[in-house]
Order: sequence, then structure tokens, then C-alpha cells
Amino acid sequence: MIGLSSYARVMESLMNSAEEPQPSSPPANSWSLKPESSKNQKPKCVGGFVLVHAGAGYHSESKAKEYKHVCKRACQRVSLCYRYYYTMWFFQAVDRLKAGALAVEAVAAALVELEDSPFTNAGMGSNLNLSGEIECDASIMDGKSLHYGAVGAISGMKNPVLVANRLLSEAQKGKLSAGRIPPCFLVGRGAHDWAIGHGIPPCPSEKMATKFSLSAYKRNKRKMELAEKMDTGHNQAKKRRQSSENENGSGCLDTVGAVVVDLEGNVAAAVSSGGLAMKHPGRVGQAAHYGCGCWAENACNMNPYSTAVSTSGCGEHLIRTMLARECSTAMQSEDAHQALLETMQNKFISSPFLAREDRVLGGVIVLRGCRCVETQPSQSIQGILVEFLWSHTTESMCVGYMSAQDSKAKTHISRLPPGTVPGQCLAIEGGVCRLTSPVE
Amino acid sequence: MIGLSSYARVMESLMNSAEEPQPSSPPANSWSLKPESSKNQKPKCVGGFVLVHAGAGYHSESKAKEYKHVCKRACQRVSLCYRYYYTMWFFQAVDRLKAGALAVEAVAAALVELEDSPFTNAGMGSNLNLSGEIECDASIMDGKSLHYGAVGAISGMKNPVLVANRLLSEAQKGKLSAGRIPPCFLVGRGAHDWAIGHGIPPCPSEKMATKFSLSAYKRNKRKMELAEKMDTGHNQAKKRRQSSENENGSGCLDTVGAVVVDLEGNVAAAVSSGGLAMKHPGRVGQAAHYGCGCWAENACNMNPYSTAVSTSGCGEHLIRTMLARECSTAMQSEDAHQALLETMQNKFISSPFLAREDRVLGGVIVLRGCRCVETQPSQSIQGILVEFLWSHTTESMCVGYMSAQDSKAKTHISRLPPGTVPGQCLAIEGGVCRLTSPVE
Repeated sequence: MIGLSSYARVMESLMNSAEEPQPSSPPANSWSLKPESSKNQKPKCVGGFVLVHAGAGYHSESKAKEYKHVCKRACQRVSLCYRYYYTMWFFQAVDRLKAGALAVEAVAAALVELEDSPFTNAGMGSNLNLSGEIECDASIMDGKSLHYGAVGAISGMKNPVLVANRLLSEAQKGKLSAGRIPPCFLVGRGAHDWAIGHGIPPCPSEKMATKFSLSAYKRNKRKMELAEKMDTGHNQAKKRRQSSENENGSGCLDTVGAVVVDLEGNVAAAVSSGGLAMKHPGRVGQAAHYGCGCWAENACNMNPYSTAVSTSGCGEHLIRTMLARECSTAMQSEDAHQALLETMQNKFISSPFLAREDRVLGGVIVLRGCRCVETQPSQSIQGILVEFLWSHTTESMCVGYMSAQDSKAKTHISRLPPGTVPGQCLAIEGGVCRLTSPVE
Repeated sequence: MIGLSSYARVMESLMNSAEEPQPSSPPANSWSLKPESSKNQKPKCVGGFVLVHAGAGYHSESKAKEYKHVCKRACQRVSLCYRYYYTMWFFQAVDRLKAGALAVEAVAAALVELEDSPFTNAGMGSNLNLSGEIECDASIMDGKSLHYGAVGAISGMKNPVLVANRLLSEAQKGKLSAGRIPPCFLVGRGAHDWAIGHGIPPCPSEKMATKFSLSAYKRNKRKMELAEKMDTGHNQAKKRRQSSENENGSGCLDTVGAVVVDLEGNVAAAVSSGGLAMKHPGRVGQAAHYGCGCWAENACNMNPYSTAVSTSGCGEHLIRTMLARECSTAMQSEDAHQALLETMQNKFISSPFLAREDRVLGGVIVLRGCRCVETQPSQSIQGILVEFLWSHTTESMCVGYMSAQDSKAKTHISRLPPGTVPGQCLAIEGGVCRLTSPVE
């Protein structure tokens, strides 16, 4: 049985769950980017829509406010990013091409805000591994160039997503000296040194741990030692398999991510994670894995929709099901909601790749955009119709979303319907918005 | 234009190119596993077929013999592996289930032999990175359980595939203490320490470098320094992009791999690589990347064929096109040869993910198997019809193949047709064999 939040009721629930009343903002399904100034005749082509998540896991009511707040700030950072580029482009300080590649910068800006929060399991405040160290994974993908950058098990970097983004942008410049192919995926010490060599400052590891992450580590370590004591004896292996207490459960999966679409239909996606609590050093999860952590693909001859996806949850489950790419492919179907529902059910919860797993824990945010042109009495309007959705099998998932011209982001904590079982049931919600600008 | 070796002529070319005349072996398209002993009435269900590669790259005539020899030994190691298990199972020292999971052990055995050769770019004799160190990638996949294990940028391990295989087998045992999910992908120092903790002995890095790999490193370093001197000046970035000399070209891509199918249709695949010469420390290539380096998937309700794939070539190209999984999916089509040809052309050479690349370098070995039962006058014969293929865009690719009951492996160096351009054209070849055993 699927525990399914009704998609039909979603706009109502979104409006009810918005963090603050927003009387001045238009309803989500009619958001538009109004020209800021009518003095200049240049088209207003910089802007877009962002959807972020602060993890699929468990978000207690007491912490809900913090999670919503960080999602809100991440959305607003994207908005600032748009405004900065809009201004720069307006004064011809950046060319239009640069503005067109803005989706990647915007999604990276959102991730930086999410990583900087001590409440999320990414960047600052990440889960500690077995050795009490922080090792992070992150990746980013540009739907226009289809380039991708990723780092795995990187230590001493406050914003792993910035290293992934730099790998992406360096790869776009072409070959290195002597025709060497630039890397798209670096791990460990090598990734750290590469980042420093490219001007990204290191951050002492002790500064990245928080009071919360350190106390969680001590608590987890005690539990682990207790569990291992109980496991000693001749039937250790059997007991190990039967152990059902899940320390990696809903509470510790707060990977973060974002998806962005701009007014030209360019998409980008990113994801960042501190990984599972008490993971083995060197373990790399889905956030660094191509096709598993994030995916972005602009519309093309073959695909009518631009799609972007970011995932969260148990890395091993998300890797083995390649959930980000599966969702992106599914989003080319006519009915986005139905396609995501079927993908989460058939390619995740009931995936043959996870046949032996009793609880399949994860969540996704997805968006798809397609161009549309409408002729109104006064002028022709071109724009992007954006459908955005989130779905999760964990107890809850915290999301935020905003279009560039909105003054405030909307935030929401989606929860599984009461009585449903995490890891076996899912929730799915979403909305629609239209980004418009006058035709040039 | 595609430079395409004719599939129709393939059996002829295979027989001509076999390393040694094999008058005693039956033709490849009618190989069968004859019972070794008729004394016992137990069915002979252990056996299979192996296809290995010693890399897609450039294999000079002078070194051809060495490459063929290592492929031959890898195939024979699989044969020994089968015989060992057959004997053990025959005397009830292992159960049938264990014998059924043999495909993974067999493919790992092949990889160990390929890694141990100083001529291949995997394990011993791997390419050195920018710092003069060896960092290896490897992965393995079990088509039956669909489990997967991988290591990236691991140093000081003679056989990285054995670490990947151990990760796979540990993950199959279920959760760790306190319900922690076991890792499927470890990198760097963490991977090294995990391996030692699981009883895999380390190998001093200096023992893994060979005279050949050290002299190649010195030569590459000189070339790189020369290229960087030429690049200095105000137009450094522009020159960098224009640099077309490809040190990572055909000569340095000798990743190794193998695919196996047993008499019950269980498949497994593995791949191992020292990575690109002069890569940045911490760079992880396709050999450690899920869906990119290898893929194995048993037949199921949805898929009529068991499929296994292993890739070789430029890691970044193979990652961004997810070539292993794409080939596996394509192998469910009716015409295996046509499906592989279209995949290599449309999803690799002409992939939108590599639109800016002038030369797309890689190769694959694939096999697919399906069950068949034939009634002959004396008895019913059940078996597996195996179609095996290789295709590459590099100048050459060295392969070997063998069924478990053959006394010798066949080896072959496939080359692009004369006048075709590496990275823009492809060769494709293959064959068919039938594995049979009496019906129980």
C-alpha cells in the first residue's frame, strides 16, 4: 500500500504550510517575473525558479523552524544571485551567454547556504565518520553543457559544492597541458589539494564540527559499542544480519540539494552530504555519484522538457537505483506526477536492485520546464511552464521554493500520512508555476 | 562514416587471429561443456564462458604477444576456478548455491590475473599519477544479487578487484552493528585501511611500479613540462584549449576487465584500472563508477537475457555516457550486434554528453545469455546460448575468451579498419557459443 499525499490537494497544503503569510506574493501557480524597470528596452531574460531541500529524514516539530529557515535563506541567495547577474548584464558587465549559464551559479549559491547551516548534514555540522572526522560528498550538473563535477570523501572544505562546481567549470575549458583530460571526479586528499591549488581556501576540520554533531557522534559510538558487545559470541554473524535498529534511520539523512531553471529553460542541479553517521572513512555516497545524487538535462530534440533532480537519503540505496537519472528520464512522460509516483514505487521502493532491503529510505526534488509563448492583448509573452515535485519514503522532507522576483520563499515540511511505514510508503507533492517575460 | 569490421565475417577473423592453432577445440559457435565424468549421476551444473579484455587503446605488434598471453592466462584462471568449485561441489564440499554464485568468483579470478600482469594498466604496473604514485580504481557486479562493490584511488593494494569483491560480499551479509548500512564504494586511504581490516594484505607501492611504468612517467613528465613552458604567456588559456596532442591517447588506456556467464545463466562483470597517466591524485575514473565501468544483470521477468558488460578507455567519457549500463540495456534488443553498434554510435561517439569532444575513446566487451532446452535422440539438453561481442573506438583492443571445458583460450587483437580515425569510428566483432549440460 502506498501512503500518498494527494497531488490534487497540494496547492492548498502548500499555502497552509508556508512559513509566513505572504499577502503580497501572487499564488504559486501564476508566479511571473515582472520587469523591474521599463526604462530600458532590453529584454529581461535573467531570472528563474529554485526548489531546494534540506534532506529527507525526520524533522521534529521543534527543529522544523530551523530547517525551514535555512531553505528560505537558500532560495533567497539564488534570488540575490539572479539580481546580481541581472544588474551586471543590464549594465553590460556580463554578456548574455554568461547570464544564460547562470543556472549553475544559482544552484551552487543555494547549496552554499544549505552547507553553511549547522543544522544540515552537509558542509558545516556534517555527520562524523567512524574515526570522528568529517568527509563530505558533493556534485553539480549543468543541464546546458551536460558537464558534471563531483568530490567524494573530501575533508577540510567548508563548501564541497564549490569544489565540485570548480571541477565542472575547469572541465568546460577543455584539455589540460599535454592534452590531458581534466578530471570530473576527485576524492579524498587529492580533491582537497586540487581545491587549494585552485584558490579555494581550506577550513580546519575542528571548525566544521558542531556541538550537535559531536554529541551525536558520542551517542552513536556508545550505541555501536553496546550493539557490538551484544553481538559477541558464536552467532555474531547471524545477529548482525538480524540487527534491525537503524542508526542511519530517518534522523541522520539530511543531505541537501537544489534544482534550478532559468527563464531560457536552462536547468542545473546540485547535492551535498556529510554522509551516513558512523560511516567507514573513505565511504562515498550518492551525493558524489553520477546519475545518483543529482541530474540536469536541458530540453533537446529528443526530450521536450528540461529536467533537474536532486536526491537525499540512504546513499547506497540511491546509488544502486540510480534514482536521480531514473527520475529525470521519467519526467519526459506526459504526466509528471504519475511518472514520479511510478518511479518512486517501481524503481525505488520495489526496485529489484534493493530486493533484500526491508526499508528503502530516500527522497527527491524534481522540476521540469518547457517553453511556452502566449499572445495577450498588449504583447506576446514568452515563458517557461515549471512543474515542481518532491517525493520521499522517509518520515519527512523539508523543502523550499521561490521564483526570482518573489520577495520571500515558501517553505514546507512534507510528512508521510499518519499510520504509513517509512521505507515502504511514500508521499508526493508539488506545484506549478509560470515564468514569463516579454518577447524580444 | 563508421569504420566497421563486419560482424558476418567475425568467426573467420576470430579463427584466423587465434593465438595458436587449436585443432582439438570445437568451433566457437558449438562449444559445449561435456561431462568430465559419467560415474556420478549428479548433474554437471558448474561451468560457463568468460570474455576478458586487456584494454582498449593501442597495442603494437611487438607487444601483441604479451597482451594476448595475459588474456589467455586470465581465461584459464577462470577455468581453474570452475574446476575447483566443480570438484568441491562434486564431493559436496560446497553447496549448489555456492556454485551458483560462482560467476562473481570466476570474474574476480580473471581480474587478478590481468591486474598481476606488468603490461596492463591495472594493479601491478599501473600508470603513475602526477605525484608519481599509483592509485587504482576497480569494481565488480553480481548479476544475481545485483550487488556491487567498488574502490577508487586506492594505493598499496596489488589486487584492487579483491577489495571491491570483498565489499560486495560483505554488503550481501546485511547490516553492520547498530543497523549501519555497509558501504558499497570506498576510496583512498579509507579503502586501503578497510581492506587491511578485512585481511587483505597491503603491497608496498614501490613494488607495484614497473620499469616500464616508471620510464613512461619520466617521459610524460618531460612532455608535460615542455607543453606547459610553451603555454606560458598571455594566451595560456587559449592555447590550453587548443592543445590537441593527446598523451592520454590510445597507448595509455589499458584498463582491464572481464564478463562471465555460468551454466545457470548467472552473470558477473568486473573492471580494474590504474587510470589515466599523469592524472591528478584523487582522480577516480569509470572503473569505480556504478553503471560506467561494469554492469551485470541476470535475466528476470522484465529482461529475457542475462547481460554483462565491462568497459575500457577514457574514464571521463565512459562516466558521462554511463556506457556499461547503456550497453546492458541495449542488449535486451533482439539483434545484439545491431544494438551494440547503435549504442556505440549514438550513445558514445555521438553522445550529446560528449558533444564538445573531438575524439571519444573507449571500448566494451559484452555478453548476453539466454536459457534454451533441446531434445536430442538420447536425452534432453539444457543450456545457455551465449552471444559475445566487443567494440572499440580506439586503435585496437585485446580480448580473450574461453568456455570452462576448453583446454586453451582464444585471443585476438581487434583493430580499427585501415584509414579510419580513432575516436570517431568504431570496430565491432563477436561470436556465439552454446553451453550445454544434460537436464536433471
